Amino acid sequence: MTVPDKHILLMDGPDSKGLIYHVTGVLYRHNLNIIHNDEYVSPSGRFFMRTEFEAGVAYDSFDSAVLLHELQTTVPGLGDHTHDRAEAPGQSGITFRLNPKRRKNIVVMVTKEHHCLGELLIRYAFDELDADILAVVSNYNMLQPLVSKFGIPFHHISHEGKTREEHEEAILRTIAIYEPEYIVLAKYMRVLTAGFVNHFPNRIINIHHSFLPAFVGANPYRQAYERGVKIIGATAHFVNNDLDEGPIIAQNVKEVDHRHTAADMATEGKDVEKIVLSQALKLVFSDRVFISGNRAIVL
Amino acid sequence: MTVPDKHILLMDGPDSKGLIYHVTGVLYRHNLNIIHNDEYVSPSGRFFMRTEFEAGVAYDSFDSAVLLHELQTTVPGLGDHTHDRAEAPGQSGITFRLNPKRRKNIVVMVTKEHHCLGELLIRYAFDELDADILAVVSNYNMLQPLVSKFGIPFHHISHEGKTREEHEEAILRTIAIYEPEYIVLAKYMRVLTAGFVNHFPNRIINIHHSFLPAFVGANPYRQAYERGVKIIGATAHFVNNDLDEGPIIAQNVKEVDHRHTAADMATEGKDVEKIVLSQALKLVFSDRVFISGNRAIVL
Amino acid sequence: MTVPDKHILLMDGPDSKGLIYHVTGVLYRHNLNIIHNDEYVSPSGRFFMRTEFEAGVAYDSFDSAVLLHELQTTVPGLGDHTHDRAEAPGQSGITFRLNPKRRKNIVVMVTKEHHCLGELLIRYAFDELDADILAVVSNYNMLQPLVSKFGIPFHHISHEGKTREEHEEAILRTIAIYEPEYIVLAKYMRVLTAGFVNHFPNRIINIHHSFLPAFVGANPYRQAYERGVKIIGATAHFVNNDLDEGPIIAQNVKEVDHRHTAADMATEGKDVEKIVLSQALKLVFSDRVFISGNRAIVL
Amino acid sequence: MTVPDKHILLMDGPDSKGLIYHVTGVLYRHNLNIIHNDEYVSPSGRFFMRTEFEAGVAYDSFDSAVLLHELQTTVPGLGDHTHDRAEAPGQSGITFRLNPKRRKNIVVMVTKEHHCLGELLIRYAFDELDADILAVVSNYNMLQPLVSKFGIPFHHISHEGKTREEHEEAILRTIAIYEPEYIVLAKYMRVLTAGFVNHFPNRIINIHHSFLPAFVGANPYRQAYERGVKIIGATAHFVNNDLDEGPIIAQNVKEVDHRHTAADMATEGKDVEKIVLSQALKLVFSDRVFISGNRAIVL
Repeated sequence: MTVPDKHILLMDGPDSKGLIYHVTGVLYRHNLNIIHNDEYVSPSGRFFMRTEFEAGVAYDSFDSAVLLHELQTTVPGLGDHTHDRAEAPGQSGITFRLNPKRRKNIVVMVTKEHHCLGELLIRYAFDELDADILAVVSNYNMLQPLVSKFGIPFHHISHEGKTREEHEEAILRTIAIYEPEYIVLAKYMRVLTAGFVNHFPNRIINIHHSFLPAFVGANPYRQAYERGVKIIGATAHFVNNDLDEGPIIAQNVKEVDHRHTAADMATEGKDVEKIVLSQALKLVFSDRVFISGNRAIVL
Repeated sequence: MTVPDKHILLMDGPDSKGLIYHVTGVLYRHNLNIIHNDEYVSPSGRFFMRTEFEAGVAYDSFDSAVLLHELQTTVPGLGDHTHDRAEAPGQSGITFRLNPKRRKNIVVMVTKEHHCLGELLIRYAFDELDADILAVVSNYNMLQPLVSKFGIPFHHISHEGKTREEHEEAILRTIAIYEPEYIVLAKYMRVLTAGFVNHFPNRIINIHHSFLPAFVGANPYRQAYERGVKIIGATAHFVNNDLDEGPIIAQNVKEVDHRHTAADMATEGKDVEKIVLSQALKLVFSDRVFISGNRAIVL
Repeated sequence: MTVPDKHILLMDGPDSKGLIYHVTGVLYRHNLNIIHNDEYVSPSGRFFMRTEFEAGVAYDSFDSAVLLHELQTTVPGLGDHTHDRAEAPGQSGITFRLNPKRRKNIVVMVTKEHHCLGELLIRYAFDELDADILAVVSNYNMLQPLVSKFGIPFHHISHEGKTREEHEEAILRTIAIYEPEYIVLAKYMRVLTAGFVNHFPNRIINIHHSFLPAFVGANPYRQAYERGVKIIGATAHFVNNDLDEGPIIAQNVKEVDHRHTAADMATEGKDVEKIVLSQALKLVFSDRVFISGNRAIVL
Repeated sequence: MTVPDKHILLMDGPDSKGLIYHVTGVLYRHNLNIIHNDEYVSPSGRFFMRTEFEAGVAYDSFDSAVLLHELQTTVPGLGDHTHDRAEAPGQSGITFRLNPKRRKNIVVMVTKEHHCLGELLIRYAFDELDADILAVVSNYNMLQPLVSKFGIPFHHISHEGKTREEHEEAILRTIAIYEPEYIVLAKYMRVLTAGFVNHFPNRIINIHHSFLPAFVGANPYRQAYERGVKIIGATAHFVNNDLDEGPIIAQNVKEVDHRHTAADMATEGKDVEKIVLSQALKLVFSDRVFISGNRAIVL
């Protein structure tokens, strides 16, 4: 039996009436069957849609270029002549992406802590990450033995004796070799400058060890202990110019009590951090995450 | 400024290619704007869709009968001539519901415990229930004073000296006066016969004080204590012929430890029960719940 | 059968070696049986203990004054001669409280929202609050009908046309009539001055509608929406001079997603708020909460 | 500065008056300082206590044998002459354990799934497991490459062509080489006979991929899907003769919805399973878990 391939269509742009109708119409006329469709219109009028569809067995291939062209010329704004309705001509402004690259290339950056990195390596080793870890970069060398077990290049780029700019420049040169689609900060504990971040807009994902926006900055578990919170958390988010301020992809929490020292919270928190990071990466790498201003839309 | 009315269209029936396209096309041609659309196709090929839409300000009314007729004659199966495609004629089998009655009429049944009933009464008093509590029926009279505070009829129908059938018959006669759309079992602690339940198919909602299917039947907290579980829960579900076996609408849980006696668990569990029941009712009364076999689909 | 009474002993003071031994020794010599004992020593060396004990059936009463005196003279610091050990004489500095008043008197303050108040009233009506609600004070009158159902005095003290000081003074005068042990801010939406708060040190309990310390101040759900969080929460805490800064008693959270508007979050959050407040009050009123600096110790 | 060693004393036996007093008295007279003390008395009258204490800097060692002897001869039942009280002489029946072996030896058993094993290996590699993994035993060989990365012996003992008894006998012979204190079933998917289990009373820990007691037996995620649950879970428990019936050590859950297929639930559930198993092992290996009938007491 031939299992039909699953295809993914992503849309992102200004909302207008009839968008779902026009898009599903193009798919229908190509004899493509929608398996799942999810859309969202932001309060500011931005439209996001993610459509999974499959071709029938008799039509198990279709011309992607033709389909995309038809989508771009059929949706309102570009002129819709299907039903003889007068629409204002012009650009619809919708961005269509058909079947984005399934398996992403990533570089992972770490400092000293192993728990998030270990989680990613195990998932990678068993093909559960939807991504290839091309390399691991660290400002310390202590995680090299772990990375070596999995046959992945490890680059120790120490920050010692370097200015921040020199250090980031060295990292950038190394990353450039791999041309990754995403940079994953799996407990990379140094602040990145805007200069660095701007190289990878919406392509850097960080795990912060607090329930943001509580406890931005350093030592969040120490802050959490001092504040006497009864719940700790972790936040996976895109990194933009402002530290700990990018769109939040996933969060989770865990109960603590007065017996937990800051160190205990840090230990307990690690389990939350690594799972939240993994879940966020799974969402991003399966093309389910859109960005709307400072908010992440998960379809 | 005129705020456009929000309308809701519900669909339930066999899946076929182009359903979303045809439905959204009808709405588009009526100049109706989709605000939110959610659909689901079950593994067995059943299609469910819930569409929220609004009419433009210039078109702030539309003819529901015309719209429904067009939906029923346009979707595939009934023959789709829009695009000169040859579809097998005949019944599409889709059930359309346009703007189901917004505010449901309900009768609440209780025994002795007040926590779920109190929750419903407070929500009702402040118009948060999306329903009118027409009456409360109980086999005990101890909750009468509470119900009286809120000016709602209370019917004490004791089971003492009656056979189960006589008792249920008396309840049915009382309920019949009110013609409720839903019966809410807010800790009604007697088993209902199939004879009773069959009067209200998929219209009885129960809160069970365990994380079903664990601990069906009586004394679930006692069972939970004996088993030494570390988490307790509550389950809101439709009632069908089999006790504690209908489609699950909502569940939630709470951590416990070895210090909790069965009585402690019961006390802690009450907070979970009443919130889970309220959340389930909110979903049902806003027409977001479909039934697919023994599973509840929440769109 | 005579069920032995349960007694509670609370201790709070500087830690020193042998504290548990000396206290349990006094109880032992009085033939009192410890049912549950929980203690905590803070990093700064403060000792907290909560002991539940019962007298045997043959000794179903004991002299509290004698017991307290013996505790105060036996524990180290005051001189421990029991075992001929040389301890530095002087004040142990431990505060002992034996059988604190079981049922607390409280005044509840509200503004316009009913959900927390309704929760408290229902619990009070069914004797689940471990407290007597002596009165409800509000700067609006819209919750008067609800409060009246439960036969509790309602004081509408509008802030309009008054300075903050005049308003608080009027509230204080009203509260003074009732001599409550605790003030419960069940969604009282005005900031209280230090002048007001200082009248009730560690005796004012507030519910804040965010997962503190995220989103202090006004409109936390609006802030949460803007930040795009994936989890919302609520925090019950003691009120001290700094707004939203007192010791946290209890917190809980709920998942949200990008579809939740700020208004949706506020609606969903109410269920969390009222349960967290109730749980915090239960802990405080059963004398399980101690304060250590800015942290709440729950034994 | 000399950091005083932390010592752990475990007690388990029939409850009687004065137990805490007598034990803390022995520690006090040895100049030992209690850091944390937690105790529990079961409804059936069994007493459990876990005491952490440290010796003063001046007394940084003490004679364990002397201390244990004194504990055994001082607590009530053996005769308490400290205060000239007449106690019935005889066995107290209390079992004392002082400073149980800190680092446990374990053998891990697996079948095909890697997620729990990977979690344990990473923790072990970074000394976070409080245990040494002496060997991994599997009825398949597919996890051998993973285990090899960490330099741990892997024994492939296939069940093919063997009776259940022959297979278990072969496993037992292999395990016997290592003399482990605990057997960890990290997704070992074959039922163990009572004959096998009886070799390791309360020393086998299993992770079951459901929220027990819901969905015992095979394919719990399939069962969960069929039942339409809204929450899935995992349970770590001791294994005794009855399958999936031993004392529960830890449980956790995760929300699902109607879109999750049984396979989706299995994927999502893996994150819960591995964390729950790790947390349970952490509790057991730090000697915080006592067994009371079919319930696990966590102090």
